[in-house]
Amino acid sequence: MNDYEYMNLALSLARVTLGQTSPNPSVGAVLVKDGKLVGTGVHLKAGTPHAEVHAINEAGISAEGAIMYVTLEPCSHQGKTPPCTDLIIKTGIRKIFVATLDPNPLVAGKGVEKLTRAGIEVEVGLCKEEAKQLNEKFFHFIQTNTPFVTIKAGISLDGKIAAKSGDSKWITSPESRQDGHHLRHEHDGILVGINTILQDNPLLTTRRPRGGINPIRIVLDTKLKIPTSANVVQDRSARTIIFTGNQIDLEKKKELERFGVTIISQDRPILSLQQVLKTLGEQKMTSVLVEGGSEIHASFIKENAFQQIITYVAPKIIGGRDAFPFVGGVGSELVKLGKHLHFTEIKQLGPDIKITAKPLNREETDKCLPESLKN
Amino acid sequence: MNDYEYMNLALSLARVTLGQTSPNPSVGAVLVKDGKLVGTGVHLKAGTPHAEVHAINEAGISAEGAIMYVTLEPCSHQGKTPPCTDLIIKTGIRKIFVATLDPNPLVAGKGVEKLTRAGIEVEVGLCKEEAKQLNEKFFHFIQTNTPFVTIKAGISLDGKIAAKSGDSKWITSPESRQDGHHLRHEHDGILVGINTILQDNPLLTTRRPRGGINPIRIVLDTKLKIPTSANVVQDRSARTIIFTGNQIDLEKKKELERFGVTIISQDRPILSLQQVLKTLGEQKMTSVLVEGGSEIHASFIKENAFQQIITYVAPKIIGGRDAFPFVGGVGSELVKLGKHLHFTEIKQLGPDIKITAKPLNREETDKCLPESLKN
Repeated sequence: MNDYEYMNLALSLARVTLGQTSPNPSVGAVLVKDGKLVGTGVHLKAGTPHAEVHAINEAGISAEGAIMYVTLEPCSHQGKTPPCTDLIIKTGIRKIFVATLDPNPLVAGKGVEKLTRAGIEVEVGLCKEEAKQLNEKFFHFIQTNTPFVTIKAGISLDGKIAAKSGDSKWITSPESRQDGHHLRHEHDGILVGINTILQDNPLLTTRRPRGGINPIRIVLDTKLKIPTSANVVQDRSARTIIFTGNQIDLEKKKELERFGVTIISQDRPILSLQQVLKTLGEQKMTSVLVEGGSEIHASFIKENAFQQIITYVAPKIIGGRDAFPFVGGVGSELVKLGKHLHFTEIKQLGPDIKITAKPLNREETDKCLPESLKN
Repeated sequence: MNDYEYMNLALSLARVTLGQTSPNPSVGAVLVKDGKLVGTGVHLKAGTPHAEVHAINEAGISAEGAIMYVTLEPCSHQGKTPPCTDLIIKTGIRKIFVATLDPNPLVAGKGVEKLTRAGIEVEVGLCKEEAKQLNEKFFHFIQTNTPFVTIKAGISLDGKIAAKSGDSKWITSPESRQDGHHLRHEHDGILVGINTILQDNPLLTTRRPRGGINPIRIVLDTKLKIPTSANVVQDRSARTIIFTGNQIDLEKKKELERFGVTIISQDRPILSLQQVLKTLGEQKMTSVLVEGGSEIHASFIKENAFQQIITYVAPKIIGGRDAFPFVGGVGSELVKLGKHLHFTEIKQLGPDIKITAKPLNREETDKCLPESLKN
C-alpha cells in the first residue's frame, strides 16, 4: 500500500457517509504505522466526533508516531466538538496527508498552519480533486450559503417526463428508480412544483432496500393550491416546507400548519427562486434535489440555479407535441443561447443510461460562443 | 492467427465498404494456406467481382488447397457476375468457413450445398452474429423488400431538435456531425419532411474529409409546397425524389421535373409511409436515413416503420414548451403504450453521446407489459 492507496481508502470511507453528515462534510481518516494499518475513522453525523478522533481512538497507543491520511483539513476551532488539530498534536502523529483544505476561506489553511507549527510534517493535495468532488455539495454550500442544486429526471429517449395525459409510470427501470432514491438519501432537501403534487401526489421519501434518510420536502406553491389530503401533508415521515407568494388564503395556511407543514410566504406575488435558495441555505440545507416538473426545471435552468443535472434516459419513445418535456418554460430563442453543459458521467443502469451534466463555467462557455455573444 | 482472427479480418475488410456496395451486401474474404495469408478480397461495388473472386485472383496458384474465410455464403447462381461456388470448386479450395448463410430464404444454403457436394469441407456460423449485424440493412431489405430505416437526430439533453424559432445550428459538436455524414454515406437514401426543407433548406449531401457517396434525397411533401429554389432541387450532386399526395399543382410538378427531380404522387390525399417504403424498395433502395423533423419522426415511430434510432445527445439545454421536440405528433396516451426500445450502443463522441437504439421485438416488449396489455 502506498500513500495514494491509503488516501483512497480514507475517501472510500467518507463516500459511504454521503447524505448522513449534513450540514457537515463527509470525512474519512486512516492511520498507518510501520507499514501497518492501525486505525480508521469516519465522521458519522453532525455533532458527533470527527473522523480523526475515531481513527486515533481506534489506534489507541499505536497512534503515537503514526501517519494520518485525512480527506479534509482538520478543524482548528471549537465547534460542537473540540478542535481535531489539538488532539492530533497531543497524540503525537508524526506526519499527516491532507487531501484538500477547508473550503471556508476564513479558516482554510489554519488547521495545517497549526499542525506545522507544532512540528508535524504536513502534505496537502494528495487526491485533491477526488476529495473536492466528494464534498462538492458541502463546498458549494460553504462558499455560497445556498444549497447545491441537482435537477433530476427520468426521461424517455425523446426527452419527455410524462405522456400528454400526465402519466409517467414508469418511464425508467427499477434500477434507475433505485438510484434516484439514493440521490434522495444524499440530498438534504427535495423540491417539486405544485403541479407535480397535483398530478402525481408523490410521497417524496427515500425508499432503499436497507433504509435511508428522507430529505426535507419543499413545494413551490405560489397560490397555496396544495390540498390538505396531499401525501406530503399527511405523511409525517419527513418535514414539509411550502413556499408561497403573498396572495394566499390564510385560513388554508393555518389548516396546513396544523398538519405540521411549514409555510414560508415571500413578500411578492411570484416566487423568487434565488430567495427560496437563500432561505433554504439559512436553514442549513446544503443540497436540494429538484424533481420536477417541466416548468420548475425550466425556472431553475433559466436562472442558472443549478449545479448538476442528472437524467436517467430510458429506451422508450413517448412522443407528442403536448407531452411533458424534461424542460418546458419559454426556452431559448436560439440554440447558441441555450445553457451549455458538459457531461461528467455516463453510466448504464439496467436498460437505461444515467447521464450527469454540469454547467460549463463561463470561461468554457465563452469558448463555444462567437465573439459577438461573449459577456 | 486462428480461424476466429482470420474471419475477423474478413469482417473488417467488409466493414470498410458499408455504403458502397448497395444493393449488394458488403463481403470480405481471406485465403490462408500453410498458416500464411495468401489472398484477401472485398466486394467493392455492385456489378463488379465478388470478394471470393478477388481473393482467389490475388492468391494465384497458391489458392489451390487453401482455406477460405468468407463473411457471407458464396452465391451459386448467375447474377451480373458468374457464381462464386463454381470458381471456388474449380480453384481447388480445400475448406471454407462461411460466417452466415444468404438471407434470401429462396437461396439460403444452396451455395453451401453445392460446395459440400463438390467435396469441399464447409463450416457455417463462425462470427455469425457479427456478420449478420454487419449487413443488417441488406438482410432487412432482402427479407422485406423495403429499406432498412434509421431515424437520426442531433438532440439537446432535453430532447429538442430546434429552438422555438426553428434555429438548430448547431446543437451537436463537429464530431457528431461528422459521424452523421458517415451515416449518410452508409445509407442509400436520406428522407426529410417538407418542413425541414422550408426551415433549413439543407443540401442533404455527404460531406466527409475524404469524400463519400451522396444518398438519394427523398422529400415527403404531400401538397408539393417545395420551392424550386430549394437546395435539393437546384443542387445536382444527388438525385431527388419527392413524394406527394394526389392534390397537387401539376404545373409546379412539371417545373420541378425540368430540374431533374422525380415526383411520385400517391393516389390519396395523405401520404402512406408504408407505400413510400414499398416504392423505395422497388427502386432497390436497401436503406434510408430519416433526418426529421419532429412530425416525420413521429409518423415513422407511430407506424413502427423504423429499424434503428440514432441520437447524438449534446450537453445543452434548449428548453421551451414550444421548441421542436425530437418526436412530435400526437404521442402516446400512457407511458406503457409508448415504443419500447433497447440501447444497442452508447458512445462518447467529442462532448456528445451517441446512442443507438432498436425496437424491442414483440416477445421482449411483452415481458415489459402487464398481462392486460399483451397482444
